[in-house]
Amino acid sequence: MPKSRRVTLLTDFGTADGYVGAMKGVIAGIAEGCIIDDASHDIPPGDVQAAAWALGAYWRRYPPGTVHVVVIDPGVGSGRRALAVAADERCLVGPDNGVFTHVLREAASSRCFAVHPERVTRDVISATFHGRDLFAPLAARIAAGAEPAVFGDPIDDPVVFGVAAPGPANGDVEGRVVHVDRFGNLVTNIPASAAAGRDGARIGATAVPLVRAYSDVDSGEVLALCGSRDTVEIAVRDGNAADVLGAGRGDRVTLL
Amino acid sequence: MPKSRRVTLLTDFGTADGYVGAMKGVIAGIAEGCIIDDASHDIPPGDVQAAAWALGAYWRRYPPGTVHVVVIDPGVGSGRRALAVAADERCLVGPDNGVFTHVLREAASSRCFAVHPERVTRDVISATFHGRDLFAPLAARIAAGAEPAVFGDPIDDPVVFGVAAPGPANGDVEGRVVHVDRFGNLVTNIPASAAAGRDGARIGATAVPLVRAYSDVDSGEVLALCGSRDTVEIAVRDGNAADVLGAGRGDRVTLL
Amino acid sequence: MPKSRRVTLLTDFGTADGYVGAMKGVIAGIAEGCIIDDASHDIPPGDVQAAAWALGAYWRRYPPGTVHVVVIDPGVGSGRRALAVAADERCLVGPDNGVFTHVLREAASSRCFAVHPERVTRDVISATFHGRDLFAPLAARIAAGAEPAVFGDPIDDPVVFGVAAPGPANGDVEGRVVHVDRFGNLVTNIPASAAAGRDGARIGATAVPLVRAYSDVDSGEVLALCGSRDTVEIAVRDGNAADVLGAGRGDRVTLL
Repeated sequence: MPKSRRVTLLTDFGTADGYVGAMKGVIAGIAEGCIIDDASHDIPPGDVQAAAWALGAYWRRYPPGTVHVVVIDPGVGSGRRALAVAADERCLVGPDNGVFTHVLREAASSRCFAVHPERVTRDVISATFHGRDLFAPLAARIAAGAEPAVFGDPIDDPVVFGVAAPGPANGDVEGRVVHVDRFGNLVTNIPASAAAGRDGARIGATAVPLVRAYSDVDSGEVLALCGSRDTVEIAVRDGNAADVLGAGRGDRVTLL
Repeated sequence: MPKSRRVTLLTDFGTADGYVGAMKGVIAGIAEGCIIDDASHDIPPGDVQAAAWALGAYWRRYPPGTVHVVVIDPGVGSGRRALAVAADERCLVGPDNGVFTHVLREAASSRCFAVHPERVTRDVISATFHGRDLFAPLAARIAAGAEPAVFGDPIDDPVVFGVAAPGPANGDVEGRVVHVDRFGNLVTNIPASAAAGRDGARIGATAVPLVRAYSDVDSGEVLALCGSRDTVEIAVRDGNAADVLGAGRGDRVTLL
Repeated sequence: MPKSRRVTLLTDFGTADGYVGAMKGVIAGIAEGCIIDDASHDIPPGDVQAAAWALGAYWRRYPPGTVHVVVIDPGVGSGRRALAVAADERCLVGPDNGVFTHVLREAASSRCFAVHPERVTRDVISATFHGRDLFAPLAARIAAGAEPAVFGDPIDDPVVFGVAAPGPANGDVEGRVVHVDRFGNLVTNIPASAAAGRDGARIGATAVPLVRAYSDVDSGEVLALCGSRDTVEIAVRDGNAADVLGAGRGDRVTLL
């Protein structure tokens, strides 16, 4: 890896317990002068899918050389592997539990390494906090210029979870809600390209217009549009679609 | 603008969806080595007034050259203008919806530019996420040394919302609660200067002493004092005045 | 102090009011190019114990020269002293209310100085926001190379709160829950060393196995293990022990 001055953090730790501070301190101690960007510490506890989705939003927006740390790690202390992933000139480190699913699908090229902790640090590694004891020093050493391959052996079977693909259904395109965001927008897996020529969508019993922007409907109305992840989203202008519709992850959406 | 190494972000995005990460990545890719400070991502969704007030707390505390990004943008994708504002040697970018109200009132000098997106980027700009597609690259290019004027045309009619001025009322000074902070403090628009020689305030049916510091009353008691924005605030020592009084933005406060 | 490029912030301010932004701006204006890491702004309002515990998680993980700012300050504006603490090559600034309790217990060597505000700044200091008006400039000037001793007089009686020590109880080791973290883990003051040779713990009427890692029990089961602070913790695998057990800070835990 080229030497990087920037590391990002994604965890489900919140910040109030000082766990994130501990990770930053370890990184700062190894990769002196490193800029540490918080991606988020508000992933719902243990929600690997939500973390994978959030990571997909930013990992490749950062410049080559960036090191992304992802610690949503309900299996910490078990036999689950630790990964270093080199993908499209960025590097990512975290547990091998599916958090890199979208990265590995999106990357033009990637290599995964199962990390040997003893190659990363000679310090004792706790059974409960690999974010601090393993992933932080690993990320910092990579940010300081080390190659990921130094720390592990190549593998070709990283954990990835199935990502439902939308399919045709009686002439319509049917997909699923894969993420609910802070605004209550229901993000689906239906690619924007499938929306060409369509003018509506259905979620549950509700049919809604497919428009270009929120402002194409009145305040409080439900709509569908192509969102920032290049997929179809269901939203309420100036409102919260998840609340209004009582909908959530896994719900069916059909383009009309 | 002088080249800056520092950009701040203020949004209503939360962090868990990766939207903020995407903005940071774009900035880091353009303004290499740039330090990105989170101001907040916890502005209530779409609350332009709350954002304007928060921005007022810090924009001029930062040194000259700082670029402040503000994306509370319920009108994204509509015809609302995008602004770059040069004010007192700082630069601010965001939607033209009133978020710069306090900045424009407080600045000794300011110039506003209506941004032409095509002068900022040749990439496609989504209809839902100008924070990532327009404001992040705009801020980064300004941080990297570009003049705001390069990206837009000067305007003299930026959106500002009316800021109620406190007025006399039967010999008293009457104002309004303009912000409720995390501690439940009720911040008013009554300037500290108007409090000279007064010794009490009234909110609803409650009369409270006007004191110098929280510690001038007992724990649990309601008080008024001059707060950190140089205006009168109603507070409860070691407690939450908004909860205790059932009060909020817009409520009337009178100095006695 | 050696010149530092890194300052950390720990507050109970949240971020949405712009108070944290104001502190960062002040620091950036004095210690140009300084990297400011957020430790947390989500400490429960006024909870000095929670802040002291969180600070203990990271203060010494950061490299020598780091300046840690801690502003949980319910006594702001009263006669409480302001402190600058030099401890094990790091520096800490904040109110003298017990927030440095764990630092002072853990440090191999430390010196405390009662700060004279007029040695820090000639600006007016508000009665409500010493984070911005006193601690931010103090931290920035130390980060820029000044010695803490310049700003105050040495004292030997900083406020520290009593930290209950676990003790023997009928042949068992009995301690207390001293912190509940985001995951609902109940962190005790029983040192990991006391757990050697034991195989269970009791909290309230519940006896639980003492294991090495979460994965040693089934999902949903209660367990005890040695956590990342080198003390015994009660947890629920993939769950929230505080909720499941209805337990919290101060509750008794016994090793069996």
